[in-house]
Amino acid sequence: MKHELSQRTINRLTQYHTVLREFSKKEIENITSAQISSFLKIDETQVRKDIKSVNCKGKCKVGYSVSELKEAIETILDYKTIKKAFVIGAGNLGIALSKYSKFSEFGLEIKGLFDINSKIIGQKFDNKEIYHLSDIKKMVAETGVSIAILTLPNKVAQEVTDKLVEAGIKYIWNFAPSILSVPDDVKVWNENLIGSFLQFCAIESVK
Amino acid sequence: MKHELSQRTINRLTQYHTVLREFSKKEIENITSAQISSFLKIDETQVRKDIKSVNCKGKCKVGYSVSELKEAIETILDYKTIKKAFVIGAGNLGIALSKYSKFSEFGLEIKGLFDINSKIIGQKFDNKEIYHLSDIKKMVAETGVSIAILTLPNKVAQEVTDKLVEAGIKYIWNFAPSILSVPDDVKVWNENLIGSFLQFCAIESVK
Repeated sequence: MKHELSQRTINRLTQYHTVLREFSKKEIENITSAQISSFLKIDETQVRKDIKSVNCKGKCKVGYSVSELKEAIETILDYKTIKKAFVIGAGNLGIALSKYSKFSEFGLEIKGLFDINSKIIGQKFDNKEIYHLSDIKKMVAETGVSIAILTLPNKVAQEVTDKLVEAGIKYIWNFAPSILSVPDDVKVWNENLIGSFLQFCAIESVK
Repeated sequence: MKHELSQRTINRLTQYHTVLREFSKKEIENITSAQISSFLKIDETQVRKDIKSVNCKGKCKVGYSVSELKEAIETILDYKTIKKAFVIGAGNLGIALSKYSKFSEFGLEIKGLFDINSKIIGQKFDNKEIYHLSDIKKMVAETGVSIAILTLPNKVAQEVTDKLVEAGIKYIWNFAPSILSVPDDVKVWNENLIGSFLQFCAIESVK
């Protein structure tokens, strides 16, 4: 994937991908930038510019091949590299993320959940089991999982992060609203669920 | 809020805000760009540039006033405009979002949830009640809520969206991985949970 793609471009490309998937299901072979623009209410010039950035060429009066454009987006966003992850914290958010079907399309495979609540250990959601946090080191070694998706309350986030680091986790996708301290070889992506929506609110003057 | 702030800048500003809140709780009066940089592992030049963009001035050898910088970020991101919303779909994601304490700090107040599962209607989470979807029109009229946060399966997303539009909802924050069709006076923000994480994976070469 090209690093110069902005988050906004990535966001639009994933939306185009959703439209392309729907066209593909309906076995429609071609799609125009005008159709994508109309479905998503994104300016057509922008759509054409984005598609150009993924190196997909359209044909005059026909548009783009649905399968070629879908493939081009999947390649540039690297959907095909399998990224294996554990979800840490089997609360509502942890379970919701484990069930989020869209993740696997993007190459993110959730291999299980971890919690400390003995009442839920052993439960399964869509073939994903909830394990006890004390087993994290063993499970990381057995599965080669390097990503932890952290959905914990603030007060335990750092303590659990220390355990994840010790277990060999290298990447943390952090949904807890706290700043985690980790060694230099561990990378943290602090998720900010509301950031992009806030900007939408500002642009649309939402009240 | 200035529209020219990029999503990445907004993301960083909200992270600075988290650090500032922690400093504020500990009653620390000043903070330096080097401290913010060290906590968040964001380049110090970038931190200074971002802070300049919110019009907050530091003092030589002292740094920034924690309360002033916090206030400046809250102003530019318009935390103080109350944005009232209903969550549509009281599944794991809907309940997780309803419980997400960070939203209220950003001015987003969730006034209730809607579902069609009669077993859960009337239940409460953190003082937020689950109502039946058939009451949406009445509730929108009574509360003046204009935002719906949609956490529904694909197959019912469009049908429910039509009901929301009819009820008077003007803004939809859509977590369903589907493209919604709405009239021109209704605005949709398609959330893409994994987009920003995908870019993080690409930059860090996550496997």
